[in-house]
Amino acid sequence: MDFSKLDGLIPAVVQDDRSGEVLMVGFMNEEALTVTRTTGFATFFSRSRGKLWTKGETSGNRLQVRRILKDCDEDTVLLRVTRLGDGNVCHTGERSCFFREIENGQAKVAGGITQAAGEDK
Amino acid sequence: MDFSKLDGLIPAVVQDDRSGEVLMVGFMNEEALTVTRTTGFATFFSRSRGKLWTKGETSGNRLQVRRILKDCDEDTVLLRVTRLGDGNVCHTGERSCFFREIENGQAKVAGGITQAAGEDK
Repeated sequence: MDFSKLDGLIPAVVQDDRSGEVLMVGFMNEEALTVTRTTGFATFFSRSRGKLWTKGETSGNRLQVRRILKDCDEDTVLLRVTRLGDGNVCHTGERSCFFREIENGQAKVAGGITQAAGEDK
Repeated sequence: MDFSKLDGLIPAVVQDDRSGEVLMVGFMNEEALTVTRTTGFATFFSRSRGKLWTKGETSGNRLQVRRILKDCDEDTVLLRVTRLGDGNVCHTGERSCFFREIENGQAKVAGGITQAAGEDK
């Protein structure tokens, strides 16, 4: 993996292996990736605290890693996980950290309407 | 959104709105997010070229944005998209940039076996 683009870090996207839901995005340094691979539990590097943290180490809501996929440039990983504990990944108590929508004019207009390519003016 | 953590950039995860497949991860600065919201097509900031690029501007494989979700910390976005053109998002010709697996000892051991929490030694 190429850790050089973000000062030693790569983004790690966490996706529920069963539902396909995107749950969170964390950052990993090389050590966090190694720990994740050897323990089987998603472990990140906390930018604010400057150290490794295993997701769920206090809450019990650990993320058991089923598969790790790397992208074409080898600068991002995708973790396919099983949620343990109560299954709520976000520290707010939501299942996913992505629970709020940004207003998006084009998408609202297009919402629910199936359009062929080229019709999306 | 908080663009301060990565020198003006946030990660943008792109997910197929229909299949749930994670297709790619790009980075956005504030302008890229504004262009994405106003045009409805996923637009990123290229770290290597130092400028905006709309995905598919040359290949035609644009990404029509259906929904934009922000995470709890407001430092990452998730784009739910419809793939246009031939639908292959990766520049290698693959549908998703995440087409290679990293070997993962624990996951291989656990693969296909449903385990209760705590049994995953």
